[in-house]
Amino acid sequence: MSELFEKLQPHLDKAYAYRVAMTMLNWDNSTAAPKEAIDFTSKAMAILSGENYKALINDVVKGLLQQLSTDEENAKLTPYEKAIVKNMKKEFRNMELIPPEELQAFEIVLAKAYPVWEEAKNTNNYSIYAPVLEEIISYTKRFAGYKQKPGQKLYDVLLDEYEEGFTMEILDEFFCQLREALIPLVAQIRKKPDWISIDCLRKNYDIETQKKLSHFLAEYIGFDFNRGVMAESAHPFTTNLHNHDVRITNHYLENKLEDAIFSIIHEGGHALYEMDIDDAITTSPIGGGTSMGMHESQSRFYENNLGRSMEFWKPLFGKVCEFFPEELKDVTLEEFYKAINYAKPSLIRTQADELTYSFHIMIRYEIEKMIFDGDVDVKELPRIWNEKYEEYLGMTPENDAEGILQDMHWAGGSFGYFPSYALGSAIAAQLFHYMEGVMPVKKYLEEGNLVPVREFLCEHIHKYGGSKNTQELLLDTVGEAFNPKYYIEYLTEKYTKLYEL
Amino acid sequence: MSELFEKLQPHLDKAYAYRVAMTMLNWDNSTAAPKEAIDFTSKAMAILSGENYKALINDVVKGLLQQLSTDEENAKLTPYEKAIVKNMKKEFRNMELIPPEELQAFEIVLAKAYPVWEEAKNTNNYSIYAPVLEEIISYTKRFAGYKQKPGQKLYDVLLDEYEEGFTMEILDEFFCQLREALIPLVAQIRKKPDWISIDCLRKNYDIETQKKLSHFLAEYIGFDFNRGVMAESAHPFTTNLHNHDVRITNHYLENKLEDAIFSIIHEGGHALYEMDIDDAITTSPIGGGTSMGMHESQSRFYENNLGRSMEFWKPLFGKVCEFFPEELKDVTLEEFYKAINYAKPSLIRTQADELTYSFHIMIRYEIEKMIFDGDVDVKELPRIWNEKYEEYLGMTPENDAEGILQDMHWAGGSFGYFPSYALGSAIAAQLFHYMEGVMPVKKYLEEGNLVPVREFLCEHIHKYGGSKNTQELLLDTVGEAFNPKYYIEYLTEKYTKLYEL
Repeated sequence: MSELFEKLQPHLDKAYAYRVAMTMLNWDNSTAAPKEAIDFTSKAMAILSGENYKALINDVVKGLLQQLSTDEENAKLTPYEKAIVKNMKKEFRNMELIPPEELQAFEIVLAKAYPVWEEAKNTNNYSIYAPVLEEIISYTKRFAGYKQKPGQKLYDVLLDEYEEGFTMEILDEFFCQLREALIPLVAQIRKKPDWISIDCLRKNYDIETQKKLSHFLAEYIGFDFNRGVMAESAHPFTTNLHNHDVRITNHYLENKLEDAIFSIIHEGGHALYEMDIDDAITTSPIGGGTSMGMHESQSRFYENNLGRSMEFWKPLFGKVCEFFPEELKDVTLEEFYKAINYAKPSLIRTQADELTYSFHIMIRYEIEKMIFDGDVDVKELPRIWNEKYEEYLGMTPENDAEGILQDMHWAGGSFGYFPSYALGSAIAAQLFHYMEGVMPVKKYLEEGNLVPVREFLCEHIHKYGGSKNTQELLLDTVGEAFNPKYYIEYLTEKYTKLYEL
Repeated sequence: MSELFEKLQPHLDKAYAYRVAMTMLNWDNSTAAPKEAIDFTSKAMAILSGENYKALINDVVKGLLQQLSTDEENAKLTPYEKAIVKNMKKEFRNMELIPPEELQAFEIVLAKAYPVWEEAKNTNNYSIYAPVLEEIISYTKRFAGYKQKPGQKLYDVLLDEYEEGFTMEILDEFFCQLREALIPLVAQIRKKPDWISIDCLRKNYDIETQKKLSHFLAEYIGFDFNRGVMAESAHPFTTNLHNHDVRITNHYLENKLEDAIFSIIHEGGHALYEMDIDDAITTSPIGGGTSMGMHESQSRFYENNLGRSMEFWKPLFGKVCEFFPEELKDVTLEEFYKAINYAKPSLIRTQADELTYSFHIMIRYEIEKMIFDGDVDVKELPRIWNEKYEEYLGMTPENDAEGILQDMHWAGGSFGYFPSYALGSAIAAQLFHYMEGVMPVKKYLEEGNLVPVREFLCEHIHKYGGSKNTQELLLDTVGEAFNPKYYIEYLTEKYTKLYEL
C-alpha cells in the first residue's frame, strides 16, 4: 500500500464506522423503533452525521487527496485505491461546499420527516406533511445551489448525484423516446381490457404465509440469510451495514399477491448487488453499488427481465402453489404468467405493471423539474400531481394517500432519484439483451438454476462496487454505452406477444 | 447553565451519540443481525468505541473537570450538573488508565465472543469458548490492574464498578447470612417435594401465544410500547438507546410457561426504571439507572415481590386463562400461585425459583473470586462449576450447556456483575417492606392498579437516574442504608407459609 494512502486509512475507517452506525439507526427507525424514540434518537444521528462530516472534510484529508492526485503518487496506487481517491475527491467537493451545521440541521429534519410522512399517508393528510416537505425542498435547493457549477442548472446538480452525467437534456430525450413508443402500445392494450384476468391474484392471501413465501423467493434468487435480514416496513427498501449485512424489507397486502412477490424479488436484486461486492473494498467509500441507476438495473433485472418471464416461473410455480394450495388450485402457470404481466394504467407506482411504470416516473420527473427548474408552491403539488395522472394515465387519485403521499423518497430528501428507476429498467434490458447472446439465460431459468446469471452479474458488475461508474461498467460488459433502444424493443416485443397485438 | 459546564456539553453530546450507536449495534447483534455480519460490524463498533473514548478522555475534558471541581465553580452548578461532573470524574479516572488501543481491541474480542458463546451453548462445546473466555479474563485482569488502588484487591475493583463500595468483605458477610438462613429453610422444603405440583406449567404452551401473553404482561406492568420494543434473544435482557427507546427481549420454552412470564416481568421492571428517568438528564452520562444492584432491585421487585404474590395474580389470572383456555381450564388461581412459587434446587439460574436463586449467585461469586482473587485454569472451570453445584444444590449438570455455558455475562466481559443480582433481591425486599408501611400495596395489586407503586418508585428512585448512588437512594427513600435482614425475613415468612413449615 502506498505510504501516503495509508495515512488516509484512519479517516476512511472513521467514516465507515459512522456510516454503519447511521445506516443501522435508519434501518431501525423504519422497521422497529418505537414511536416516541425519534426526538432523542435523531439528536444522536445528527451528531454522528456531523462527526462523519468532520472525519472526511478536513484539511488533513484535503491535503492527502491533493497529494494523492499528483501523477507520481497516483501511479503508486492500486486500481481500487485510485477509485477511492477519485470518489473521495468528488465527495469532498460536494460536502465541502455545505456548512456542517446546515447538514446536521437537515439530518434532524429528515429524521423527523419520515414518521410525519408515514402519518400523513396513513391519515390521508397532506397538510401535515406539506410544511416538512417545503423545509426539505428548501434545504435541497440551498445545498444544490452551493454545489452548482457555472452555467449548470439546479436540477442537473441533483440528477448528477444519483447518476453521473445524466442531465435534463439526456433525460428529456430518453423520456421522449419512451413516450413515443409506449403511448401507442398502451393505447392498443387498453382496447383489450379483458384479455388478461388477474382474479387469481386477488384472493385472500394470508399475510403470514406471504412472509414465508417472500423468504423462500429471496432465498431462491440467491439472497443469503447468513449475510442478510428481511423485515417489514411501510415501503419496501434495501440497505446495508456492509456487504456481509444486507437488509431488505417487504410489505404485504392480503388481496394483492403479486405485490409481495415482486417487491421481494426487486429488493433481492438490490441485495445481491451489495452482497457480491469485493471484500477488499467493503469498508471503503467504494464499498457500495456504483449509482442509483445501476442499482435499480439489478433490482429490475431480477424483478422484470427474470421475474416476470415465463421461464422463471416454470420450475417455481408449483412451489408457490404449495404455499397457497387452496387459492391456486385451479390456476394454471399460463394464467399466473399472464396475470403477473397484466398491464393497465394505475395510480400507485410500486404496484404499477412493467409497461406503464415509466409514466409514473415521468410524472415525478416533471414535478421535480417544476420544483427545482421552475417555481411552484408546495401546497399546489397535490393538484399538479393529480392533473398529470389524469393526463398520462387517464385517471385521478381519489385522495393524496394514493396520490402524492405514496412515495417516501421526498421525505428522505431524495430529489433527482426517481429518474434512475427508468434508467435502471433501460440498463437492465440492455444487459439482458447482451446476456441472452452469450449464455442460455432462459434455459437456466427453466432449470431453476440462477447461478450462472448471478455469476455473470457478479463478475462484470457487482464485485466492482463503486470503483467503476455506470458507463464504464456498461462499456466493459456489453461493449456499448447506455442505449435505451433495447428497453423499448423488449417492452414492445413482450407486450405485442402477450396481448397478441 | 454555568459557562464552564456549557463547554463540557459538546463532549457529552458526542459521547451520547456514540453510546446510542453502540447500544443500537449491540442490540441488533443479539436480536437480528445475520450470522456472518459480525467481522465487519465489529470493526465499526471498535472504531466507535475508540471515538467514544477520545470524546471523553482528553486534555480539554480533564481540564474542564478539574476547573468544575473547584468550590467556586462547583457552587454554580445545579444538582444534576454536579452529579454529572462527579460521575465523569470517576469515569475519567477509570478510562484514562486504560490505553485506548487496548480498549478497542477488547471491544473486538467481545463482539466476536457473543456468537462463539452462543454456538458453544447450542452445541454443548465448552472447548470452543474456553480460549475466548480466557482472552476476556486476561483483558479484564489487565484493565482491573490499571485501576487498582494501593492495597485494593483485584476483584474488589470489579465489584466496585457494578456497585460502588460493595467489597468482598461486605459480600462475604452478606452471603454468609444468606447461607445460614436459607440452607435450613431449603432443607425443610426438600422434605416436602410433592407439596406443590407444577404440572399446570408443564403443558404444551404455544410459543406465538406466549409472545402475545408476554406483550400483554409487559403492558400490564406499565411498559409503554410507544417508547419501547420487545424482541427475542437467546437470553432475555434489557437495553436502551435512551429513556424514550427502551428495549426488552424474552425467550420461550414450550413446556415452561413461567419462564416467559417471569422473564418479561423481570425485564419489564428494568425497563420501567429507564423509562421513568427525568428527560432533563436523558442524554447525559447520568441518564441511566444508577447501578447494577439498584437496577436489579427494580426487576426483582416486579418479578418477585409483586409478580410472585397472590395479590398480583388475583385480577390477572383470568386474563392468562384467556390466552390458554384449554391448558388452564382446570387450574385454580391457588394452584397457579403455588406452582409459580415452587422451590426446588435446580441447575439453570434464570429458571431458578426465588428461594434457591441466591445459591446460583454464590457459586458464580466464588468462581469469580477464584479467577480474580486466586489462580485457576480456565479449562478447569466446568469441573469446578459442577462440583459447586453438587455441594450447594445437590446436583451436577449433565453437560456444560446446562452448566457453565448457561450465562452470557462472562462472554460480555461482565465480571463482578453477578453479586448485584443477590443485592438487587435484597434491596427489593427492603423497598417492599418500607412501601407496605406507607401504602396499601397488596390492595392496589388486587385492584389491578399498579400506578401508585410505579409512581412511588419513579418519584423516589427512577427519575433520579444516575444522579444518586444506591446508598443515597435508599437513605432518602426508606431512611436506612442497605440492610439484608428484610430479604431474609421476606423469604423465610413467604416460604414458611407456602410450605406450611
